Amino acid sequence: MSAFWKDFPELNNELQLVRDEILKHSQSSDAGFEQALTEMAGSGGKMLRPAFLMLSARFGTYEPQKIRTLAAVIEMLHMATLVHDDIVDDSRLRRGIETVQSKYGKDYAVYLGDWLFCQCFMMLSSHDYTRENLQDISKAIMKICMGEIRQFNFRYNAHMSFKNYLKVISGKTAALFAMSFYAGAFEAGCDVKLCKALGKIGHDIGMAFQVVDDLLDYNGDSEKLGKSAQRDLQRGFYTLPLLYALETPGGEAIEAKLASDLSEEDVQSLLTMVRESGGVARAKKLADRYTTRAMARIKALPEHEAKATIRQLAERLIGRDH
Amino acid sequence: MSAFWKDFPELNNELQLVRDEILKHSQSSDAGFEQALTEMAGSGGKMLRPAFLMLSARFGTYEPQKIRTLAAVIEMLHMATLVHDDIVDDSRLRRGIETVQSKYGKDYAVYLGDWLFCQCFMMLSSHDYTRENLQDISKAIMKICMGEIRQFNFRYNAHMSFKNYLKVISGKTAALFAMSFYAGAFEAGCDVKLCKALGKIGHDIGMAFQVVDDLLDYNGDSEKLGKSAQRDLQRGFYTLPLLYALETPGGEAIEAKLASDLSEEDVQSLLTMVRESGGVARAKKLADRYTTRAMARIKALPEHEAKATIRQLAERLIGRDH
Repeated sequence: MSAFWKDFPELNNELQLVRDEILKHSQSSDAGFEQALTEMAGSGGKMLRPAFLMLSARFGTYEPQKIRTLAAVIEMLHMATLVHDDIVDDSRLRRGIETVQSKYGKDYAVYLGDWLFCQCFMMLSSHDYTRENLQDISKAIMKICMGEIRQFNFRYNAHMSFKNYLKVISGKTAALFAMSFYAGAFEAGCDVKLCKALGKIGHDIGMAFQVVDDLLDYNGDSEKLGKSAQRDLQRGFYTLPLLYALETPGGEAIEAKLASDLSEEDVQSLLTMVRESGGVARAKKLADRYTTRAMARIKALPEHEAKATIRQLAERLIGRDH
Repeated sequence: MSAFWKDFPELNNELQLVRDEILKHSQSSDAGFEQALTEMAGSGGKMLRPAFLMLSARFGTYEPQKIRTLAAVIEMLHMATLVHDDIVDDSRLRRGIETVQSKYGKDYAVYLGDWLFCQCFMMLSSHDYTRENLQDISKAIMKICMGEIRQFNFRYNAHMSFKNYLKVISGKTAALFAMSFYAGAFEAGCDVKLCKALGKIGHDIGMAFQVVDDLLDYNGDSEKLGKSAQRDLQRGFYTLPLLYALETPGGEAIEAKLASDLSEEDVQSLLTMVRESGGVARAKKLADRYTTRAMARIKALPEHEAKATIRQLAERLIGRDH
């Protein structure tokens, strides 16, 4: 289990049970298949989405097994999208371990992702979940797909609008964060107004989280972060700090440097140019705006012990000193 | 619409409405996405699975819109598996038109398939379908994934057992044929015994259909069929005629010829060896056994006008002179 949760022992225990639930539903007649799923489930991801779901469900009638299975579904859907992302990206590593497509082949990765999707829908239809949640969860995954397609369509486009960047990250990250918060509350029988309020908190945390993730690529100077920025730049994924930098007086010089075959030196020089343009600082301001809004929305939640945990968790995720 | 249906005008009309339903549910904010789906839906596939579903639903209370949407879902699930198969196979063409992955890129193909899966589950949860059907449909797709994985695991294995070959084609083809027959009857309120009988007909038609498909690769001498056999042999997918041939006295000579880099000449000589070994004829006998069983099961169905259509359709598909 990730060290991230050490200050949240109760949630940590509950997440361990969610992981067991995932393993229980990863059984397959194919040994390789099952091993790949077990490795993924045990690879030390933070399991943020199930945590969000369980926290928001506490505002209603918390039926542990029902919520736990739903939390497992949300994480398994996330796993399915990661397995498929790695095919598209030809990634060799994820969370420090070899990806399914690299270790077992593209075939495995395609069918393992599809299998996971179907297993999730089977779990959803096997339990007594509401049809509304089935639809909403399907819709959230469709949004993720559209976010990825949008990102793909805007590759190498130095004139991508901020609005389109926000649409991309809304699909890529915020949609499933929002869904996790919403679905937990909804399934626990909270009234629609509270479900929506929690969903919006998930959306804002997701937006702030992704903007911070994107700006850290430019801010950090560790080799690892440089590598991540390099990969995004080479694949033509231009994120907010760069888009902001392109709008400054030095933007033309930056645009002239962009290409698909950037050397490590080119990347380092681009990172410096973007930082010096103020693009990173401006992205940080936007992240702060989402954080502030998320915090205000959390404050407006009804009094409940889960409320404090959500606040602490949001602080840890997006309130950090980036 | 495929010329295949010209003797079934009523079914042909109904399939056109199913196609409209698919197009209605293929709308997307991304123009490329929508175009790719429209092209696929219009590419002249036979739409066998929706036809099976609609025919079997006639045995119960036929609610046209409900059955039509379910038929569209079954075809869209099939489309999703095809799009993903093409990624794995790196296929350039399907049904004579360029594949999604070749025309729009691997990214599109991955996310378009995922989007289709989710759209199907959304359609299933939006209508008043039974939870049992949701589960069964999810299970059928999981079987398809496992069939593909099994096929992958047995690549280049000249000692693959017949039983494993049957498991592969059961997953690849028969599972969704069976599901189409079963789901139609189930959703039309037929009793479980009749649903199961129809499901078994679908299974047997699917098995015969796939064995025939595999043996035609060896039997035909047109360039097109030779190409398909060559591709399967080079990718290490050894089908029934070859597996049978490997068991004959000449099997060792055939095994010695198998390799991943077969020239066109090697393939032609392998095709001849397999035919001369009697492998094709033996495969034909197995296909006939499935056909005979399917026909007997059809005969045992309760009297209904749809019964004659199912029989004619089965004759057309698997009773042909192969």
